[in-house]
Amino acid sequence: MKDITQRFSKTAKSMQRSAIRELLKFTNNPDVISFAGGFPAPDLFPIEKMKEVACEVLDEDGAKALQYGETEGDLKLRKLLVERYNRQGFNIDVKNLVIVTASQQGLDLVSKIFLNRGDKVVCGLPSYLGALQAFNAYGANMIGIRYDAALDSTLEVLQTLKELPKFIYTIPDFQNPSGVTMSEADRRMVLRIAEKYDVLVVEDCPYREVRFDGEHIKTMYEIDNSGRVILLGTFSKIFVPGFRLGWIVAHEKIIDKIVTAKQSVDLCSPVLDQKIAAKFLEKGYLDQNIPKIIENYRRKRDGMIAAFEKYMPEGVQWTRPEGGLFLFITLPDYMDAKDLFDIAIKENVAFVLGNAFFCDGSGKNTMRINFSYMSEEMNTEGVKRLATAIRKLMN
Amino acid sequence: MKDITQRFSKTAKSMQRSAIRELLKFTNNPDVISFAGGFPAPDLFPIEKMKEVACEVLDEDGAKALQYGETEGDLKLRKLLVERYNRQGFNIDVKNLVIVTASQQGLDLVSKIFLNRGDKVVCGLPSYLGALQAFNAYGANMIGIRYDAALDSTLEVLQTLKELPKFIYTIPDFQNPSGVTMSEADRRMVLRIAEKYDVLVVEDCPYREVRFDGEHIKTMYEIDNSGRVILLGTFSKIFVPGFRLGWIVAHEKIIDKIVTAKQSVDLCSPVLDQKIAAKFLEKGYLDQNIPKIIENYRRKRDGMIAAFEKYMPEGVQWTRPEGGLFLFITLPDYMDAKDLFDIAIKENVAFVLGNAFFCDGSGKNTMRINFSYMSEEMNTEGVKRLATAIRKLMN
Repeated sequence: MKDITQRFSKTAKSMQRSAIRELLKFTNNPDVISFAGGFPAPDLFPIEKMKEVACEVLDEDGAKALQYGETEGDLKLRKLLVERYNRQGFNIDVKNLVIVTASQQGLDLVSKIFLNRGDKVVCGLPSYLGALQAFNAYGANMIGIRYDAALDSTLEVLQTLKELPKFIYTIPDFQNPSGVTMSEADRRMVLRIAEKYDVLVVEDCPYREVRFDGEHIKTMYEIDNSGRVILLGTFSKIFVPGFRLGWIVAHEKIIDKIVTAKQSVDLCSPVLDQKIAAKFLEKGYLDQNIPKIIENYRRKRDGMIAAFEKYMPEGVQWTRPEGGLFLFITLPDYMDAKDLFDIAIKENVAFVLGNAFFCDGSGKNTMRINFSYMSEEMNTEGVKRLATAIRKLMN
Repeated sequence: MKDITQRFSKTAKSMQRSAIRELLKFTNNPDVISFAGGFPAPDLFPIEKMKEVACEVLDEDGAKALQYGETEGDLKLRKLLVERYNRQGFNIDVKNLVIVTASQQGLDLVSKIFLNRGDKVVCGLPSYLGALQAFNAYGANMIGIRYDAALDSTLEVLQTLKELPKFIYTIPDFQNPSGVTMSEADRRMVLRIAEKYDVLVVEDCPYREVRFDGEHIKTMYEIDNSGRVILLGTFSKIFVPGFRLGWIVAHEKIIDKIVTAKQSVDLCSPVLDQKIAAKFLEKGYLDQNIPKIIENYRRKRDGMIAAFEKYMPEGVQWTRPEGGLFLFITLPDYMDAKDLFDIAIKENVAFVLGNAFFCDGSGKNTMRINFSYMSEEMNTEGVKRLATAIRKLMN
């Protein structure tokens, strides 16, 4: 058998390994302080409660928990999530929500039902790498915009070319990778522009509930009332990522097509995990755990920024996220984070090249820094090492 | 927002709900005896052992079990599966195996990395509906063959048209839906023909270990030594389907591309479930449970066939599977199983229209019957009701 790789599909030939997931091998070295992944703090996982709830689910509902489930997801879990959203100000029905195998599958399914090869998607510069990969896997072309204010003119050009995007991809709260949050005014502006050009909006909300400061800003889904917004949610950052459970909130007709597409993709999401998650929600354990996550990550963000202020050389800039797991560093223009990476690894500290998040290949002087995974002490030590590496590159 | 459905991708527009999964709503009526699903018998799920193992995993490895995992799958689970295959006569390495979110995802990922729109796939008449859906979701055209012996001439025609398929899709052991098993001679023949025309073979093996009679026949993966065969395995029928865990065994270069594609699809499969499955394997619980499944399903098959012989009217034919979960009924030519379905539902018995499994639209007088899910008593009662419905349609 020769030339297996020649037989790959067009999209498979263009697929690249995730720069982030490939970096994670460095994190297996215990000497390395890793700011690279997007991992939650494992010491916040509610392991004892998980045992309690898992045993309860298996006792009460074991035969169903281990059987095939409905493609739409466990009905009780869907109802609980819908009620929770409606308590937060949404006005949705169980028909507007489907459980997916983590929000990465949400991105895959939204791509599957909307994108033909060559279709355009508008996204941020930078934007979440996993989303760019999902869109790329369907042959989409990404059009990056640097500021929300550039959206109107970008869509105007695309309209002239008869190349309007299928959707605008956004992460309004504590964006991955930048850590930046869209104001309500900007959300309304994006929706107005989306309406003007009649394009859909995908609102990715993995970090929304992990807010350290300030007030929650309305989701675009809540502001919109035309069925234009597709919201992606997940348990990964507010509960545990290992369950691989997320959900999509959208117009009923979109959910209906997502369910059809999901049948061909994995039939249904992990069932025992869904039933455990539902019981966690029902017992109030989920909502008890989130404040612990917020408090822990807020301290880590504060410690990290304090360390930046103390150790970073002149000319290095960083964002100050109001929530989430990441902040973004911009090095002086003349520097390349790639050169820094090799030095940093020798100093036993890892990060993700910001460049990976820019669909136009820019951002060579940027880096994404995760502050949730390591302890506060390690975060501070890591910043010291990173500052040392930057100084070495500057000289 | 008008015309949401007009915005769907070409493949999404052509997607149809699974006839099987849509039928499952009938099974929610407790009065209906359902032969429709492909559900394992829930009373064979090892619930108590599951509790024991889940608690052990959470105690010993909780932080990792709830965290993101590697895209390739849990290394211990992969090693255990590789060792198990090698004890059965395979000669594979951990590089040849990737964990997927059930073998349905295996079908999706194989499609994703090989199929361009319009590519051909050769499959059986009939063949597994979920596979046809997965191929269809990438815009493939299915070419069905009724007998293995027709493969050579079919490929000859396709070669003349320069339309050779990307792969041949097979389910050699106790095929879904027919229940038929390919002989070793036929497997070797298919491989020789695949080699002659230089096409890949996808060997779907969900039922292989659930053999009631006779000896195991070598997999095509074992017979082949050219890297041409991609084998799909799953825990769904030998352990529990609710975990959504399967695997792909293939040439290292194919696995490598599958892993890249999987990053964009769900990052990794459910992690706690993988660690529980690994411990089940390690403790020998999996291999202790399989004989119970085999014995139970063998009795059910025997009881079902005895009931057919006793109750079915003249002119109705059925297969006698040596394993698996399904048998296939052929009604007299002039009958349409669709007409029968409406009568059968009034008799409180459900099945799947065989037609759904024929990519060429044929098979209108066929039905798939599952014998694993219901009790022996219900199976017999269901056959009685089905026979009554058939007689009503005959008159």
